[in-house]
Amino acid sequence: MKSITVKSATKNYQVFFEENPKILLQNLIRTENAIFVIDRNVHEQYNVLFQTIDESKKSIIDVSENRKNMDMVLELYSLVLEKSIKRNFTLISIGGGITQDVTGFVASTLFRGIKWIYIPTTLLAQSDSCIGSKTSLNYKDYKNLIGTFYPPDNIYICTEFLNSLSNSDYLSGMGEVVKLNILAGEENILKMKNTPKFFDQDNKNLSDVIFEALMIKKDYIESDELDKGRRNYLNYGHCFGHAIEFESQYQVPHGQAVVMGMILANIVSFNRNELSFEKEEFLRKEILAKLLPNELLRYQFNKKAIANAMKKDKKREGTDLPLILIDDKYRPSRINDLKIDEVYNSLDKYESLFR
Amino acid sequence: MKSITVKSATKNYQVFFEENPKILLQNLIRTENAIFVIDRNVHEQYNVLFQTIDESKKSIIDVSENRKNMDMVLELYSLVLEKSIKRNFTLISIGGGITQDVTGFVASTLFRGIKWIYIPTTLLAQSDSCIGSKTSLNYKDYKNLIGTFYPPDNIYICTEFLNSLSNSDYLSGMGEVVKLNILAGEENILKMKNTPKFFDQDNKNLSDVIFEALMIKKDYIESDELDKGRRNYLNYGHCFGHAIEFESQYQVPHGQAVVMGMILANIVSFNRNELSFEKEEFLRKEILAKLLPNELLRYQFNKKAIANAMKKDKKREGTDLPLILIDDKYRPSRINDLKIDEVYNSLDKYESLFR
Repeated sequence: MKSITVKSATKNYQVFFEENPKILLQNLIRTENAIFVIDRNVHEQYNVLFQTIDESKKSIIDVSENRKNMDMVLELYSLVLEKSIKRNFTLISIGGGITQDVTGFVASTLFRGIKWIYIPTTLLAQSDSCIGSKTSLNYKDYKNLIGTFYPPDNIYICTEFLNSLSNSDYLSGMGEVVKLNILAGEENILKMKNTPKFFDQDNKNLSDVIFEALMIKKDYIESDELDKGRRNYLNYGHCFGHAIEFESQYQVPHGQAVVMGMILANIVSFNRNELSFEKEEFLRKEILAKLLPNELLRYQFNKKAIANAMKKDKKREGTDLPLILIDDKYRPSRINDLKIDEVYNSLDKYESLFR
Repeated sequence: MKSITVKSATKNYQVFFEENPKILLQNLIRTENAIFVIDRNVHEQYNVLFQTIDESKKSIIDVSENRKNMDMVLELYSLVLEKSIKRNFTLISIGGGITQDVTGFVASTLFRGIKWIYIPTTLLAQSDSCIGSKTSLNYKDYKNLIGTFYPPDNIYICTEFLNSLSNSDYLSGMGEVVKLNILAGEENILKMKNTPKFFDQDNKNLSDVIFEALMIKKDYIESDELDKGRRNYLNYGHCFGHAIEFESQYQVPHGQAVVMGMILANIVSFNRNELSFEKEEFLRKEILAKLLPNELLRYQFNKKAIANAMKKDKKREGTDLPLILIDDKYRPSRINDLKIDEVYNSLDKYESLFR
């Protein structure tokens, strides 16, 4: 079985690739003292598969971005306590990024940390969020303000689960894959451009695409797990992206907001003479725009709401705003002096580009 | 300045001893981007001292055991967000163990962990809880069920703050000091017995007593920070103790409940032929009973409530109960097969001993 080992402060953990969901489930069910926490949508879609898990060991949860908060954590504490969870138990969570965030936070804080196995079921979670130790909760209007660093003990990638993804969720995940490949530099960017069907849901080599994305991310997180320096570059596209998500009340999926955020960050990079027009245009036309449906290319921003949301970015340290830029060699850098004017300016520019 | 360095998984941290509260405050006020979180009682008692802190940097909190939960954490997130806290800020918390637990949990989860300085103001917090990385919250009827491992960056011990302690709070702290010294073995036990005023609030060498207690604890936590083995012995007195606290609705202070718990655990140790009658009696009469007022020596247990509370011990793994015993050489061991009958039996015995 293909696998990746990730080094973390308190332990090393492994990502295994298992193509057959039945074999995966058969193995997981053998885990002693396990409680499964499964996203209701995933549970319904793969009902036959999950029937093999005993009801007494299974909690089904309703997930959505506006439930990714402490209320849902308190709900999940109750659910697993009803299943008589003890400190030597293992939480096995199955679902997308929100399921990961909430169960991860619960696993990290219940009994001050219990064993945790995670099976990501979206492209976003499989190719990006499943590694890196972060758990995140929203607090009031603040996105991901609350959280812990707590990686799962094991992660299992099964691309079968991606077959049931909506195109929008698929493209959302592909947004983070593309971000990682841009950060990896020219060779990866040209490979994406020149690989037929690279961006398409019927890409036959998704497992390899995911493997490679995780290997790029592994390099960043192993060198800076606690996000005090280099790891911050993974936030490329996220400063604008988080604000767009929030402004749209989470109607724009995370990864697609990140793609829009990369286009916007590249406009700032160009305006600040970091990135040439040729490279900005190449990335926009040949890579990023391919991931956005028409309604997001022709998106009408509520600019004031976006500027206000960016002021609540949890990575902000001063009075101005932070942003990850890239230069002509696709090398990222972080600025902390982005002005509100520049925010408005790049949103205007975006709106004019795709008319 | 006397100090202790404690090794932890993610960082080393230091305990400094500073006898002069004014000098301590003058130093702390110089911390950049700091927000002070202070127990209201402590703030009132040392009002003149804390007047030097700017109001815009100060949050006063009301603490009590039944507020040591997620509601209070959510309240504190709001309080510090109102002070415009950002990820590069430092939380400076001043108060007893509950203040430590709640601010520590907030510091560990806000922005996934921010800098944190802690000034313990009770004997319990100064001599025991301030080191060891644990933060704890109660959840429903479960004591300390929720928490994280997150040590402060620096701890400052100022014994001046102990002058305003009630005798009951003082004796509560002394309970943990005595527990640590019993676990350290015969030499420490005899030293306690033979030192005049060792147990008294007017002990002139409290700073040394605290230093020594922390050094004993340091040895346990450095070898087993995540409490998977040896550190568990520090739970001596706590299996019964937590249940007594809960049954009394936290009227019996923590450290005094632990002293009662040690007497009860020793009775079990004796019944199981681990501890001789002579040693059990010696510890009870010469050490432990000295820390308990008459009403706790003649305490009438609600035995059913205590047995039920012990079933909710978060360290429980099987169907029977866990307990830390000691043997005739004061060496601790952990059993996981304590029966409910043994619980009732030792509670009966306790009641008959001090009549």
